[in-house]
Amino acid sequence: MAKPQPRLQIPLGELAQIAEGELVGDQQTIISGVSEIDKACDGDITYAVNKQYVSGISKCRASAIVVPLDVTRLDRPMIRTKDPYWSFAKILEVFSPEQAQPDPAIHPQACISPGATIGEGVVIRPFSIVEDGAVIGDGTFIDSGVHVGSQTRIGSQCHIYPNVTIRERCLIGNNVLIQSGSVIGSDGYGFVLKNGQHYKIPQIGSVVIGDRVEIGSCVTIDRATIGRTVIGAGTKIDNLVQVGHNVEIGENSLLVAQVGISGSTKIGEGCRFAGQSGTVGHLSIGPGSTIAARGVVFKDLEPGSFVSGFPAKPHREELKIIASLRKLPDLIRRLGSLEKFVEGLRRK
Amino acid sequence: MAKPQPRLQIPLGELAQIAEGELVGDQQTIISGVSEIDKACDGDITYAVNKQYVSGISKCRASAIVVPLDVTRLDRPMIRTKDPYWSFAKILEVFSPEQAQPDPAIHPQACISPGATIGEGVVIRPFSIVEDGAVIGDGTFIDSGVHVGSQTRIGSQCHIYPNVTIRERCLIGNNVLIQSGSVIGSDGYGFVLKNGQHYKIPQIGSVVIGDRVEIGSCVTIDRATIGRTVIGAGTKIDNLVQVGHNVEIGENSLLVAQVGISGSTKIGEGCRFAGQSGTVGHLSIGPGSTIAARGVVFKDLEPGSFVSGFPAKPHREELKIIASLRKLPDLIRRLGSLEKFVEGLRRK
Amino acid sequence: MAKPQPRLQIPLGELAQIAEGELVGDQQTIISGVSEIDKACDGDITYAVNKQYVSGISKCRASAIVVPLDVTRLDRPMIRTKDPYWSFAKILEVFSPEQAQPDPAIHPQACISPGATIGEGVVIRPFSIVEDGAVIGDGTFIDSGVHVGSQTRIGSQCHIYPNVTIRERCLIGNNVLIQSGSVIGSDGYGFVLKNGQHYKIPQIGSVVIGDRVEIGSCVTIDRATIGRTVIGAGTKIDNLVQVGHNVEIGENSLLVAQVGISGSTKIGEGCRFAGQSGTVGHLSIGPGSTIAARGVVFKDLEPGSFVSGFPAKPHREELKIIASLRKLPDLIRRLGSLEKFVEGLRRK
Repeated sequence: MAKPQPRLQIPLGELAQIAEGELVGDQQTIISGVSEIDKACDGDITYAVNKQYVSGISKCRASAIVVPLDVTRLDRPMIRTKDPYWSFAKILEVFSPEQAQPDPAIHPQACISPGATIGEGVVIRPFSIVEDGAVIGDGTFIDSGVHVGSQTRIGSQCHIYPNVTIRERCLIGNNVLIQSGSVIGSDGYGFVLKNGQHYKIPQIGSVVIGDRVEIGSCVTIDRATIGRTVIGAGTKIDNLVQVGHNVEIGENSLLVAQVGISGSTKIGEGCRFAGQSGTVGHLSIGPGSTIAARGVVFKDLEPGSFVSGFPAKPHREELKIIASLRKLPDLIRRLGSLEKFVEGLRRK
Repeated sequence: MAKPQPRLQIPLGELAQIAEGELVGDQQTIISGVSEIDKACDGDITYAVNKQYVSGISKCRASAIVVPLDVTRLDRPMIRTKDPYWSFAKILEVFSPEQAQPDPAIHPQACISPGATIGEGVVIRPFSIVEDGAVIGDGTFIDSGVHVGSQTRIGSQCHIYPNVTIRERCLIGNNVLIQSGSVIGSDGYGFVLKNGQHYKIPQIGSVVIGDRVEIGSCVTIDRATIGRTVIGAGTKIDNLVQVGHNVEIGENSLLVAQVGISGSTKIGEGCRFAGQSGTVGHLSIGPGSTIAARGVVFKDLEPGSFVSGFPAKPHREELKIIASLRKLPDLIRRLGSLEKFVEGLRRK
Repeated sequence: MAKPQPRLQIPLGELAQIAEGELVGDQQTIISGVSEIDKACDGDITYAVNKQYVSGISKCRASAIVVPLDVTRLDRPMIRTKDPYWSFAKILEVFSPEQAQPDPAIHPQACISPGATIGEGVVIRPFSIVEDGAVIGDGTFIDSGVHVGSQTRIGSQCHIYPNVTIRERCLIGNNVLIQSGSVIGSDGYGFVLKNGQHYKIPQIGSVVIGDRVEIGSCVTIDRATIGRTVIGAGTKIDNLVQVGHNVEIGENSLLVAQVGISGSTKIGEGCRFAGQSGTVGHLSIGPGSTIAARGVVFKDLEPGSFVSGFPAKPHREELKIIASLRKLPDLIRRLGSLEKFVEGLRRK
């Protein structure tokens, strides 16, 4: 059986450098783990994103804390930094369990077409298939049960998790991460009614995914009918999201879990779709827009819009409507009593 | 490495015949690709579903256009047809990349039970398993990583995409297409509370899927508790749709992405569920009904209903409510000022 | 080809004992099948959860019926029981098709790391992989195409259906059932904005799933950033549900299809989330709470809450609002005519 990994022992001074922060305290303090502030033990490092969290810290047992710059004094060693959350992410990288490097890298129970091109340092795990004409870039890790369709190109340093399906003729950039169960390049939902039956529109386009995109689990991204469905570089997609055919999403956008984007909608860069929100098809969503949880967009949005509700409206307007709704039953009562009084006046 | 497929060169006259349209212009015009109207290049054919699209066409570089019958004159060759979208679908078929025919058809790394029955011309790709007693009809293509459970019967000319799971004792018709990650025949969600715990109701029924059904990616269709969950012939289901146990869906219905149909609901033929809509369980939805995006049905629907909202109401009524909602904050203000005035009257 | 299983022939007296009910009628009555009340045939047993269902039973062709205790007389043999639904579940178990015991139990086309520990009576089907350091408990059934990550521990008597992914370092209890396409332990959705790009927060925690948990198809349960995402013993999760990182769900809760629980929310025991409902992150939902279909919780809930709507409110309040909404368009008209009349008064 595999031996458990030995616990790391890192001097705090080293972590401060990695975290790009200023160390206050003994740089030889040994850190052996990371933890949430309320669960930290001796030897752990934790973090506080703002000053308030630091105030009640006396009970916390962490040996060191990453804090924002406005924290100047603490009862224990600290790393002061402009962005504690980012600094803590850097420290989490240090404590991330290392993935064992499989040997041999290309597992004999994988099925690689002789017509596929496999880069340097590629790992392919058992029961994965790479079809004819596919290209896998250097250093990419393809876990078990993955399907890479014919003519599909995957860039370098990607990580494709188990049981992902990437259909034929897709184009995946570098440093892309696709989590389990996701499907890239499935046929778009396109039918035309003919003699009472739904006739299939062939879906012969592809999907293009930019560099540094992260795709969650059980995400579905349909290929274009013709042309390309596009996910811009740096965009991050959460679990169970649907992206319809011919959708184009700009760079560095966020799509939270269970979002649905209907066909042919264009989304600008830096947009944020909160959980279970969506859009109808053929829209244009300006860059930097935010769609609040459950919001559904039915009209084009200007850059920098912040909308919510069904149909989506400016968020402030929606908040007023929501607040008004709670008064609605009482409103009906008030109107009724007013009508009664006025009716009395009218009779006079 | 695989050679790229040569670009097709099809005379326009041939495409007009396939599209069942009337050619206006040189039948020898060579068409080598298909494109959207705003992205077309020289050599492409594109389409316009109605006359308006044709008006601003002078910038379009396509060599030919599929147009409706009311377009009589154009600056380039055209195919006039009753139904441009359908005609264009036929042309897309011509330009669809051909799927290579694997050799051998049954891959040695597939796992076929000796108790399974495999038809003529069946393809089974690596890492797929066909369990004991399963039957695969002629010409069906089973891609990699598919599970076909024991006693399950799949008809002829079906296409089962990678990583699909079809559980035991299901019945799939002919010309059915099931996309990646979908699960057919999972246990329905049935429990009975006993001594504070949820006791599982065994789910011993099956799923029956009619001919020409298309099922998207990551769709879940639960088997019946007892009896059958039924998807009628010609029905098309988009990605991430949930169909509960003992649901029955009529023929030629459409379920768009992220729809959820709760257990034991019966849906008539020719119904349309728009994105993220749903129903509670044990309902009857009349044939030809439309449920708008996000609508949730809580009551039986008459044939031909058109509903929206939560709970779903006649669409016109819902539109009025939505329009009224925007006035609600102002309404409260107006009612308040009216009350104040009337209160003044009252005091006099 | 596999022989069909012979039809069972069970004397009614035996079923009454299994159902923990009182037999009224001939205990030698032979029962050969189970059915819904409206589809039962001669030889079937069916059930009626309450007295009303029994009233119109004369057309039913079942040979016996499971009924509640307040049914005292019937035109055919019956099993009287305190809880007919539970009793019928016990009878369904009797009629559940037996799963063939594969031989050999560990399929030669499975890939088991020499560093994995496999219990007694474990079944592992083709194209499943058990990574280094993983532990599979006695009697657990792992169907085809499953990924069990390194250091993951699965308890005894579990059933993992085809194409499930369980990532590294997860902990699964005993008698757990995970259906096809589900993903346990995927990376949580955590990023920090740095220089205009979303920097990934490493997700180094795990997922802990208690005994007797059932997880539907295409469910995604993210691992914790640090610490654990927890699903309490006896909790049942339906299809296409999203559980974010660091969520903790108490024992014996129910999450119906397409529910979404955002990161770090704590849900008490015995809660019920109806279809397509959800919560935002970092909430505390008191034990015994019910969230109605489509409800979205934005605030902590007291124990035993019953809420619905967006944002979720006490269910009674939401019902009043929904009822009021239908009156809203008319309300605007009434207010307008009142204003006109009062304006007339004002002018005088």
